[in-house]
Amino acid sequence: MSTTVSSDRPSAAQLTSSDLPQGFRWAAGAAGIRYAGRDDLALLVSDAPASAAAVFTRNGFAAPPVHVSREILQASGGTVRGVVTNAGCANAATGGQGTANARAMAGAAARAVCGADGPENEFLVCSTGTIGVQLPMEKIEPAIPGVARTLSNTPEAFHRYARAILTTDLVEKTAAASFATAAGTVRVAGCAKGSGMMQPNMATMLAYVATDARIAPDHLQTLFSRTIERTLNCVTVDGDTSTNDTAIVLASGASGVAVEPESDEEKHFEQALYEVLASLSRQLARDGEGATKLVEVVVNGAPDFQSARTVGLAVGNSPLVKTAIYGRDANWGRIACAVGNSGVPFDQGEITIRLGSLTLFSNGAPLPLDEEAALQVLSREVVRIEVDLSRGSDTATVWTCDLTEKYIEINGSYRT
Amino acid sequence: MSTTVSSDRPSAAQLTSSDLPQGFRWAAGAAGIRYAGRDDLALLVSDAPASAAAVFTRNGFAAPPVHVSREILQASGGTVRGVVTNAGCANAATGGQGTANARAMAGAAARAVCGADGPENEFLVCSTGTIGVQLPMEKIEPAIPGVARTLSNTPEAFHRYARAILTTDLVEKTAAASFATAAGTVRVAGCAKGSGMMQPNMATMLAYVATDARIAPDHLQTLFSRTIERTLNCVTVDGDTSTNDTAIVLASGASGVAVEPESDEEKHFEQALYEVLASLSRQLARDGEGATKLVEVVVNGAPDFQSARTVGLAVGNSPLVKTAIYGRDANWGRIACAVGNSGVPFDQGEITIRLGSLTLFSNGAPLPLDEEAALQVLSREVVRIEVDLSRGSDTATVWTCDLTEKYIEINGSYRT
Repeated sequence: MSTTVSSDRPSAAQLTSSDLPQGFRWAAGAAGIRYAGRDDLALLVSDAPASAAAVFTRNGFAAPPVHVSREILQASGGTVRGVVTNAGCANAATGGQGTANARAMAGAAARAVCGADGPENEFLVCSTGTIGVQLPMEKIEPAIPGVARTLSNTPEAFHRYARAILTTDLVEKTAAASFATAAGTVRVAGCAKGSGMMQPNMATMLAYVATDARIAPDHLQTLFSRTIERTLNCVTVDGDTSTNDTAIVLASGASGVAVEPESDEEKHFEQALYEVLASLSRQLARDGEGATKLVEVVVNGAPDFQSARTVGLAVGNSPLVKTAIYGRDANWGRIACAVGNSGVPFDQGEITIRLGSLTLFSNGAPLPLDEEAALQVLSREVVRIEVDLSRGSDTATVWTCDLTEKYIEINGSYRT
Repeated sequence: MSTTVSSDRPSAAQLTSSDLPQGFRWAAGAAGIRYAGRDDLALLVSDAPASAAAVFTRNGFAAPPVHVSREILQASGGTVRGVVTNAGCANAATGGQGTANARAMAGAAARAVCGADGPENEFLVCSTGTIGVQLPMEKIEPAIPGVARTLSNTPEAFHRYARAILTTDLVEKTAAASFATAAGTVRVAGCAKGSGMMQPNMATMLAYVATDARIAPDHLQTLFSRTIERTLNCVTVDGDTSTNDTAIVLASGASGVAVEPESDEEKHFEQALYEVLASLSRQLARDGEGATKLVEVVVNGAPDFQSARTVGLAVGNSPLVKTAIYGRDANWGRIACAVGNSGVPFDQGEITIRLGSLTLFSNGAPLPLDEEAALQVLSREVVRIEVDLSRGSDTATVWTCDLTEKYIEINGSYRT
């Protein structure tokens, strides 16, 4: 097999027709939910019923669309026709009215795509935007049929979809991977949005993955959940887990290639899923609100993956580490302090801290700091921090960004 | 009894001689640790051996002075003569050399105050400043005797001490309380420093409390630990717990008033301790790096104090809540989101969220927002957020501040 992965920089790498999985169409349009004229309503549709799997926020204030999508996934037995998404209003903390609206939105999409008699539980539903405001159903419901009429399997439709779901994001996030088998080629393509209110604990913000693999819903859920643990759940921008985080994968089966448990195809498929989700994760972190840099925190020598990720997140969430990187200040003591706050046991005498290729702390003592070399490392667009705990052989990579005045500016005036 | 508490605004309320507990002297001087000419070395001395209690950081990268002070407290059986503190260098992540330096610093203070034959384990030691740099012992050791010669029981000496321990703080933090008994008056006076790298889990940064109550070390430790749980451990500026956090209380006994377990005096003494530490907590939060406002997060209706504090800290640590308050944006959905991230169980239908006196969310749904009234609440220097969980009768108050561009500016260039 061969797995090819699209670039991390979607602006430099628009997907082509051959990147897109077969059996899907995308569309987006402007319902005027927040601004007039901006696309804020998006449809992802499988031509035939598709295997579906999803991972949702664990936030206790989980939004009505999250509850409704979870219900639909269960009621449908994991086979749906698509997803409808709006940007500009999160439909979160909106009570019974919010739940009724989320159901109505899913129903409107099902009718528009499957016809007036379309059965229930055919569409999942996602919302993103401001919390605590009811959805403007009088704008959304009439707009859905028009958007459905423009559904298309072209890269243009896919990218328009990827842009419509954005809120404070500066750039769209897309990625694709594929692998060839004797029975045909399997394609995996995804897009995501999310820039603030991001922290793992689950799919970070909204992510949609489509594949033409033929795979059972339960099996798809297992592979998807496992891959998300090491990708989207390793991204943090500001440590806040949103009320609406949702990651959905749909598998159309149109490639004709079956992915069975314990098969070679499964290995390749999981790798392709990982490549797409890891690329989206890096793109999400790099486009964190106000960010100027992507920060990769690699934790090695951990007794297990959870410990490694906990340490990585402690570093990746430390505002002092993030501001130091923004200021290109090799104040690595803040990394040590963050590791110490993680709650993961370690011995100060055994830990190693590196910035890029520079070892800063080792054998219980600081090493002489080459300020010139450190400034070079910190001047790159991707800054790598490495912590070795000397406590085992497991590892995790956490992706985050620096913390800048721009983050404050964006979030001090988001709603107004 | 009557407990009187000094104002929260130390600039408006210098302490007077009658606020200060008997039996103590303070001093500060410039050792040139970080800047020439700035006070950076401070001594707190009890005229006679004093009962001592302390609470230290739980950070896994706890600094050598923390380990050494803990050792000394144990070896001395809880009776010491004083504390020596330096600002400008945290002596953290400095290994065996750092431990030797912390011991030498404590020893130099003991010799300067108690004479050349002064026994060991007489002085506790604290450091604050940059992590990962060795103490300049060649500057500190020779400076200690000169500082010791200026020890004095005047308010001027106390305030000079309170200023010398500061780092990025803009203002000194001091507070005093007292209560009268038939046997005499007991005084409690304290000062603290801390502005960034602050989050509970323990005494936030450095806090020193002196009292002339007569109380056994173990009893003092019990009351001090209990009070800190509801005061300093409810402060957060940026969620980072420092490697050096230390709170120390010394009791000289010079008032002649004994504080015994289960006595009226104990009740009054604990109340006075609470007033001093709560005042210092508010002052610490208000002077958080870059802050323009003090934010009080009051959580009511909790099943227990820990749950209440966990919810309060989730709100108080959310950068999205903190930037919204800075921007005077009544985006209360971010409060709901933070509560949902706390991990504390609740029912969306039962929770109430208030901003000042405005109820924003109740009975599972948002209430109409009076933007004008909300702007008024958010324009005050002290902003109060209230969350009622409807799950019990316990409560906690968390103190934090808003998050501003200034925080980024300060921390993007602290070391350079």
